[in-house]
Amino acid sequence: MELPILVDRTNADSMQEQIAGQLADMMLDGRLPAGSRLPSTRSLAKDLRVSRNVALAAYDELFAEGYIEGRQGSGTYVVHDLPVQPQPEDKADAAQPRWLEKQAPPTVASPARVARMIDFRPGQPSVEPLSDQVWRKLWREMAGEQPPDAYGPPEGYPELREAVARYVGRSRGITCSPDSVVITSGSLQAVNLIAQAAVRNGDGVAFEEPGYPTSRAALQMHGARIVPVPVDRDGLDVACLDTAQPAPILAYVTPSHQYPTGARMSVVRRLALLEWARRTDSLIVEDDYDSELRFDATPLPALASLEQASADGVHPTGPRHVAYIGTFSKTLTPALRVGYVIAPAVLRDRLIRIKHLTDFQTSWPLQRMLTAFLDDNSFNRHIRRMRRHYAEKRELLGSIFEPLAGIADLRGLEAGLHAYLEIDPAVPCSEVERAARARGVQVATIDEYFHGSPTRNGILLGYGGLTLDQIERGGTILAGILQQCSRAC
Amino acid sequence: MELPILVDRTNADSMQEQIAGQLADMMLDGRLPAGSRLPSTRSLAKDLRVSRNVALAAYDELFAEGYIEGRQGSGTYVVHDLPVQPQPEDKADAAQPRWLEKQAPPTVASPARVARMIDFRPGQPSVEPLSDQVWRKLWREMAGEQPPDAYGPPEGYPELREAVARYVGRSRGITCSPDSVVITSGSLQAVNLIAQAAVRNGDGVAFEEPGYPTSRAALQMHGARIVPVPVDRDGLDVACLDTAQPAPILAYVTPSHQYPTGARMSVVRRLALLEWARRTDSLIVEDDYDSELRFDATPLPALASLEQASADGVHPTGPRHVAYIGTFSKTLTPALRVGYVIAPAVLRDRLIRIKHLTDFQTSWPLQRMLTAFLDDNSFNRHIRRMRRHYAEKRELLGSIFEPLAGIADLRGLEAGLHAYLEIDPAVPCSEVERAARARGVQVATIDEYFHGSPTRNGILLGYGGLTLDQIERGGTILAGILQQCSRAC
Repeated sequence: MELPILVDRTNADSMQEQIAGQLADMMLDGRLPAGSRLPSTRSLAKDLRVSRNVALAAYDELFAEGYIEGRQGSGTYVVHDLPVQPQPEDKADAAQPRWLEKQAPPTVASPARVARMIDFRPGQPSVEPLSDQVWRKLWREMAGEQPPDAYGPPEGYPELREAVARYVGRSRGITCSPDSVVITSGSLQAVNLIAQAAVRNGDGVAFEEPGYPTSRAALQMHGARIVPVPVDRDGLDVACLDTAQPAPILAYVTPSHQYPTGARMSVVRRLALLEWARRTDSLIVEDDYDSELRFDATPLPALASLEQASADGVHPTGPRHVAYIGTFSKTLTPALRVGYVIAPAVLRDRLIRIKHLTDFQTSWPLQRMLTAFLDDNSFNRHIRRMRRHYAEKRELLGSIFEPLAGIADLRGLEAGLHAYLEIDPAVPCSEVERAARARGVQVATIDEYFHGSPTRNGILLGYGGLTLDQIERGGTILAGILQQCSRAC
Repeated sequence: MELPILVDRTNADSMQEQIAGQLADMMLDGRLPAGSRLPSTRSLAKDLRVSRNVALAAYDELFAEGYIEGRQGSGTYVVHDLPVQPQPEDKADAAQPRWLEKQAPPTVASPARVARMIDFRPGQPSVEPLSDQVWRKLWREMAGEQPPDAYGPPEGYPELREAVARYVGRSRGITCSPDSVVITSGSLQAVNLIAQAAVRNGDGVAFEEPGYPTSRAALQMHGARIVPVPVDRDGLDVACLDTAQPAPILAYVTPSHQYPTGARMSVVRRLALLEWARRTDSLIVEDDYDSELRFDATPLPALASLEQASADGVHPTGPRHVAYIGTFSKTLTPALRVGYVIAPAVLRDRLIRIKHLTDFQTSWPLQRMLTAFLDDNSFNRHIRRMRRHYAEKRELLGSIFEPLAGIADLRGLEAGLHAYLEIDPAVPCSEVERAARARGVQVATIDEYFHGSPTRNGILLGYGGLTLDQIERGGTILAGILQQCSRAC
């Protein structure tokens, strides 16, 4: 049973309220008739991609309000005596019209921030290191120019593509011509464009397990059959990828700082992955979403640059088996929505055509502003400020969880804006999440990042957008809960 | 034979040069072997959606350079003695990789502007009426705020959705709650989202014939089977739509100022179209791309507002069989890339999910700037300035072609930024186009807007981005050519 429930994590109502409300509506207007059986909380949670606690809380609420009843050992049912009130006015809206018989797109959760909670869920950088003065200057320069009176090139303005080509050359060792660069409305659009260009309905797409749910859902929306490939401390387990038959047509990876486990893909794995792509004639989608934010560790070469280096000489036109995706979301603000993709020529032409048919081009004011930002030295200065800013935060986080060795192991601090706390399997992460929430601290469990059944136990600690004080207080609460739970086991 | 040729109208090379260059490459690297037959110019032109003249010119060039030869009565061939030079370095790029077996996306042309030509091809507004002072102030205000450190709601920020709901209420009589509004990255993205939400592979989609090629190609990219429905002086011929069996699941229309013929859909037709949508349970996609720019004529109610008025009372939540699309491309700049869609609730939820998976949200700086623009009175003032600005241009254009009555009939001047000149069938529009080009004036023929074989004869005159002097000079040249051609016939 697939229930038409929409969970919007940006909505002011909590997820459980939204789910309970929509279920109640369906019971009242007869779409869920009296006596019918509801899905289990486990399967509801899986369908809606929410944690099982949310599903449980929604059912608790419906139970308390008298909508549903449990029968010993046989599940949850709509109560028998529920008065159905069909709503004629809304009937037309509620019923699926003929023109909307297509399968609904996948639902994906986006973190809803609750103001009074300390929210460790990842995905939120800090905008603090951004110099107000530089930011205002960049926009002032843009606004001082007359805006273009026509559409620009779908692949992006040449000036920005040149600036990006220089930037990835400098920062990631990727030698490419500006012609290889396609400017996109964020890295997620790049994933969409690649999927639209290459993925036919049912094509296998290898995806990190656990992995980034939004990219995964975007690929699924365009017909991909997800082939989950386990991730360990060295990143994607390429040997497992190799057993997938037929070979997936593409593999999506986040080698700089695996999302969500924070693993850095080792060079041996990187070379093996490239070899796999060459041997099977597959494409690697390298999402380098937070490569700018690396700390003590030496940067490892991007797959896109390794491919060039290991081939017979550098291909001046860019990589051939790798589509490299970058973004300004982590370094500026996620709400900016500008990214880029560097793709093999044969793919690039399609990306440009699809970009053209999708939204013509990425907005001129944004492109103009970023060109100026990249061109003078202010972007480099900004990155250095960010690194300094986050260094303090991650040191603090590291020091809080250091004493927990044996119970919980903090990983992925070398880069990015979040770390992964792998927890002793004896302490279920869902219980930690629940206990923390009760004490005003929100974390994400690793469960939410799995396509299949979770095989690991841990929580994500995004610290980018939190203050030092919040990290201190929230981290201490979490550490306390972990110690307590571990003793109770 | 489908040749992998990409025509980019924004490229500095002319379309014929691009086509000739890519064909030559294919002959040289063996993809088009010596002696093989080329498609006819007619079929090449159709595949690439360029005018036949462009295809002819490309073949002329290849002929002159010795690549191809014609055989009496049997078509065009690659010459037999062409030395093939397979390029090992580029072979990997040229060959279709395993991961790119998916059908290529449709190609669509975008007008390339040539600086020294007077270019009457539509799609270019003027940015002149935009007050520098207001523009700079809006961006200054935006840049003065700290940017958000997280993703915003995929449907757009509440403030902008409220401003848009008020605006369409005031300007188009559409009563809707801000909840009905989804902010998009331009109107083309709205078309994409709707197609992704509703269109299954092979679903029939009624489309104006002639119509807007970019929207058409976007719908096709998402699997639509285009059902062309003729347009006359009263807009879409709803009676013809009614004969399409099975009924298309949606109908795309531009009722305010049909693109490209400039026809305004009559109220009788509007009501008939709504009745069709109700009867067949279909969706109307109302693309109101330039509704702000209307001149002498009384504005006709939007389909979205008519539907509400003719139903039993206004549905406060918004229209039910109409998805209404608006944009800021024509009033500000096409390079801004912000639009919106007001859709029935059942569709809206899907649009939001797909928007989320496509690019998370439309950029915050753009939304923030537009909110301020709509909120104080500056947007209204700007529209009034635009109307005054274009009024002079269209009067001039009208006066130039008035003496040609009988040879050519100018239509669609009541609104928008382009008019349509319907020409006596005895004077083929492709000849007018060619003669004008030779004299430094670029026009688009109506042929390029047809999905099937053209059934009308005329040219498009976009005057939005031209100066009064350019309109005077270019229009006079065109009028002269038309008079000459007509005498020659």
